[in-house]
Amino acid sequence: MSNNTETLEGWYCFNDFRKIDWTRWKLLSVEQRLKVLEELTDLLNTWTVYEQNAEGDHAIFQILGHKADIMFMFLRPTLKELAQIELAFNKTKFAEFTVQTTSYVSVIELSNYLPKGEDPYSRPEIRARLYTAIPNKEYICFYPMNKLRSEVNNWYMLSSEERNHMMRSHSLIGRQYAGKVKQIILGSVGLDDYEWGVALFADDPIYFKKLIYEMRFDEVSARFGEFGSFYIGRYLLNEQLDQLLEL
Amino acid sequence: MSNNTETLEGWYCFNDFRKIDWTRWKLLSVEQRLKVLEELTDLLNTWTVYEQNAEGDHAIFQILGHKADIMFMFLRPTLKELAQIELAFNKTKFAEFTVQTTSYVSVIELSNYLPKGEDPYSRPEIRARLYTAIPNKEYICFYPMNKLRSEVNNWYMLSSEERNHMMRSHSLIGRQYAGKVKQIILGSVGLDDYEWGVALFADDPIYFKKLIYEMRFDEVSARFGEFGSFYIGRYLLNEQLDQLLEL
Amino acid sequence: MSNNTETLEGWYCFNDFRKIDWTRWKLLSVEQRLKVLEELTDLLNTWTVYEQNAEGDHAIFQILGHKADIMFMFLRPTLKELAQIELAFNKTKFAEFTVQTTSYVSVIELSNYLPKGEDPYSRPEIRARLYTAIPNKEYICFYPMNKLRSEVNNWYMLSSEERNHMMRSHSLIGRQYAGKVKQIILGSVGLDDYEWGVALFADDPIYFKKLIYEMRFDEVSARFGEFGSFYIGRYLLNEQLDQLLEL
Amino acid sequence: MSNNTETLEGWYCFNDFRKIDWTRWKLLSVEQRLKVLEELTDLLNTWTVYEQNAEGDHAIFQILGHKADIMFMFLRPTLKELAQIELAFNKTKFAEFTVQTTSYVSVIELSNYLPKGEDPYSRPEIRARLYTAIPNKEYICFYPMNKLRSEVNNWYMLSSEERNHMMRSHSLIGRQYAGKVKQIILGSVGLDDYEWGVALFADDPIYFKKLIYEMRFDEVSARFGEFGSFYIGRYLLNEQLDQLLEL
Amino acid sequence: MSNNTETLEGWYCFNDFRKIDWTRWKLLSVEQRLKVLEELTDLLNTWTVYEQNAEGDHAIFQILGHKADIMFMFLRPTLKELAQIELAFNKTKFAEFTVQTTSYVSVIELSNYLPKGEDPYSRPEIRARLYTAIPNKEYICFYPMNKLRSEVNNWYMLSSEERNHMMRSHSLIGRQYAGKVKQIILGSVGLDDYEWGVALFADDPIYFKKLIYEMRFDEVSARFGEFGSFYIGRYLLNEQLDQLLEL
Repeated sequence: MSNNTETLEGWYCFNDFRKIDWTRWKLLSVEQRLKVLEELTDLLNTWTVYEQNAEGDHAIFQILGHKADIMFMFLRPTLKELAQIELAFNKTKFAEFTVQTTSYVSVIELSNYLPKGEDPYSRPEIRARLYTAIPNKEYICFYPMNKLRSEVNNWYMLSSEERNHMMRSHSLIGRQYAGKVKQIILGSVGLDDYEWGVALFADDPIYFKKLIYEMRFDEVSARFGEFGSFYIGRYLLNEQLDQLLEL
Repeated sequence: MSNNTETLEGWYCFNDFRKIDWTRWKLLSVEQRLKVLEELTDLLNTWTVYEQNAEGDHAIFQILGHKADIMFMFLRPTLKELAQIELAFNKTKFAEFTVQTTSYVSVIELSNYLPKGEDPYSRPEIRARLYTAIPNKEYICFYPMNKLRSEVNNWYMLSSEERNHMMRSHSLIGRQYAGKVKQIILGSVGLDDYEWGVALFADDPIYFKKLIYEMRFDEVSARFGEFGSFYIGRYLLNEQLDQLLEL
Repeated sequence: MSNNTETLEGWYCFNDFRKIDWTRWKLLSVEQRLKVLEELTDLLNTWTVYEQNAEGDHAIFQILGHKADIMFMFLRPTLKELAQIELAFNKTKFAEFTVQTTSYVSVIELSNYLPKGEDPYSRPEIRARLYTAIPNKEYICFYPMNKLRSEVNNWYMLSSEERNHMMRSHSLIGRQYAGKVKQIILGSVGLDDYEWGVALFADDPIYFKKLIYEMRFDEVSARFGEFGSFYIGRYLLNEQLDQLLEL
Repeated sequence: MSNNTETLEGWYCFNDFRKIDWTRWKLLSVEQRLKVLEELTDLLNTWTVYEQNAEGDHAIFQILGHKADIMFMFLRPTLKELAQIELAFNKTKFAEFTVQTTSYVSVIELSNYLPKGEDPYSRPEIRARLYTAIPNKEYICFYPMNKLRSEVNNWYMLSSEERNHMMRSHSLIGRQYAGKVKQIILGSVGLDDYEWGVALFADDPIYFKKLIYEMRFDEVSARFGEFGSFYIGRYLLNEQLDQLLEL
Repeated sequence: MSNNTETLEGWYCFNDFRKIDWTRWKLLSVEQRLKVLEELTDLLNTWTVYEQNAEGDHAIFQILGHKADIMFMFLRPTLKELAQIELAFNKTKFAEFTVQTTSYVSVIELSNYLPKGEDPYSRPEIRARLYTAIPNKEYICFYPMNKLRSEVNNWYMLSSEERNHMMRSHSLIGRQYAGKVKQIILGSVGLDDYEWGVALFADDPIYFKKLIYEMRFDEVSARFGEFGSFYIGRYLLNEQLDQLLEL
């Protein structure tokens, strides 16, 4: 494989978007709801315990608008574990009060800029980014994207110099938002319908808009960025999930 | 950030489109309907009281056609409050008689033309537009839009001079409709699927058609405007919402 | 507004497409069905009486295929009246046996070729076209359309001479079908997702195909026409609607 | 009308695609199922008797995959008869166990290459193709298509010489499959969303693939063909429909 | 037929994607579930027995995400057998607890590089690929694709030399993954909506991403590849299917 296309991969990622069927949820008695939530909490705890060994992470977000009510984001060393998590969730009683409106399968991705011969996976600063916890910021912005392959603007027909040059300018914009916005880049070629998923995290959501809008004037986005739907949500601590479901 | 991309942001905005499930609504007895409407009115009143401190606004519209029956438009200082409003509405009994067909998340946006050094957020005439009430006109026209990034017509690859020049000509058309059409420009880069939402308000809806059609011949729309769905509706006073739901 | 974009507007138009839920309809007893149809007939009669003062018109069509079973077409002086009509229909018992699959909001539109200074709305031959009854022909063909704004073929960047020249050639084709096909041009910029709706009426539907196919070779359609879905239906007299719903 | 666009039209065609609701179908007792099938058979017989006077034809196909389970194809002299057929089917008990997933409205079409003055509709060999029975081959391949109107490849801006030249080369490929594949060309400009429907019939379905793939390298498909969904199915004799529905 | 377009075809293929209705599945008693699974197992066994005569193959996969929960992949000598398999499955009790979200109809395809005169179907190494078992690897990646026919990048207007040249470079990339990724190329021109289906099989799913990403920089993908949805899943042994359905 040429240097052009070399990427490093860390944990696999599964984003699971659900709409809540409030009408059916309200039909439950308080006791029934508590029982459903207890089972859900038990499952969440199983995951948390597992994750304490740094074998992945998960977080729950309240999504605004009609696309979903909540979104689960899971990180795990293997796709098999993500398949098992989705299945385990579907078997809970709580899942019966949700509809899976969309989802995204991907893997944490870094570009490899190391010289040949060095094993990037042995470097702690790289490991820290490939196997990273989900930032505990108040807001998330998630969107899938492609690099365009149109007749004039075909990212994949550029030389690696051109691509590297543009990506460098792109990342300079990102660095201006250091401390304000954290990002996880998710590769999804061969795993889902777009080539990447982008997850941004910030305590003030206005920085999502500022960052993405500024980048849109940058050549790599302006000419080559093809964007899917944008999902915006709030990080939920376990007790906030309870509040969200409280009637 | 360069002057190119500088924008000012005011209140966040949430447009919530709902179709009414008339069949189920009619199954209720008069007493049940009254109880449902009472709970809804109580919630609307909570919002109104809150808004009397100029901490946002809301309005309800009857939407024509199959896309929705009613649309709620909410303005609030934070996204968190909008998430709470959507949640509170979903927990009402009335929400069970609606289906959320679509929605839009955005923030009131102004272009910043002030010289460096001045704080635009301290200027009253700018604050009045960033934190504005929803115009009480009889009709609304709402649509999302992008600026095109096609091979020849790529808005984001133009110089700021070209963009400013075109936008100025564009706003001259708008000014001919002063007194007839009010508008709120909503930025949604990073918040929803399009880059902007446009909300127009008028007592005579023919001006929506006249204004948008005239603008379509203007270069900025003709070459760079990419439009989503158009939603047209009537402003509903609280008692008109009651009439709408009356059987 | 320049001469380029000057249009005249008449009655607003609402096309309401419904699929019939035959399974539920058949569950009714003969008496129940008669009662439902009586309520519907009463509403239709209200509209007919209103329309006898030349304040609009309405017609019902049986639509072929999966897109809809019936389509209501309403003409009224104001959008508000159309909103009230849709609402009144939704409140009928009959509406519970239908699903609104799509719809279209527009306004009857004419191009204004009169010299400045003359009031076109005072001319009887123009009024007759702006405030026109729905032709009582056996078939309807309805479709929405845009004028293309692609990089090479951008209708809105043409000079008014070029546009007028092409439209004239276009209308010459239309005139060959005089007596065979009647048309109502519906402007929908700012009112619905396309820029125009076209409603053609003929006793022999082969003329829809002949006319539209011939026009497709004409430059204005060939280069600039962007078409939505085509809906084809049969005009229903009141007693034919009864037959359609008879089991 | 110029020679460019002259077409001949025969019987109207209605393709009605249905998915079977197996869960509900299985809820019926054997007796109930027999009764439902009896009513369906009676309706099919009515059509067959009618068709014995060469006033149309019909056939039923089992469709593979999620798009549909069965597809009815009807040929009739008028659109009105097709509307009545669809309605009659919807009123059967059997229709309650189906969902109409899609449909297509069109008319058998031939290009007219006769010199002016001759009446093509009086020629027996042309009549045989305009008013043709559905070939009783084991498989059907149905798809809708357009001729492209993109900026460079605009079929409708070509001269009639260019179009005739390309169509001739196209039909030469088709002739190589004579005896293996029969086709019915269905014009649908103004009748449905695409400009044509193509129905191919063969005892060995590999010839659908061979024929269409070979044609794709031919200029008229390669540059101007825009294809919709492909539907592939098996011809069902009446007793085979019974077997399909047998539990 | 010219050499350009010559392909060899083996077994037909049917990919059947199903979502499980967990809510209804959980309503069953243990006994009822066992009975449903017994009937399903019996049907699977019938297929397995049939396949032991090398007359096709089948496998079941757990699909990640909202697009499906499980996917059946069937290979058979004729389309008729695939139609019968789909029908037989739909008649099982288990099918009532699934929704068919999508599907794909195709046929195993090889390019024919043999000199004229030789019968490729008589060569054992070719037969082994045309009539191949589904690789028993832990993961599958399935996606449909087209070769682009845009104005500049029109695959079907290239000379056969250009196409062969590009395909050769393409397959060289593939060969680097020999031993890691197995593939079955499925032709679907005239059978389904895309021109090909690609099924990749690997024990480590990261190779799907590596392979497809590297290929995307190759001219044939970069300029001519048009991709549909990507489906990623895990191979299920019969007992794993039982576990998946266990509550």
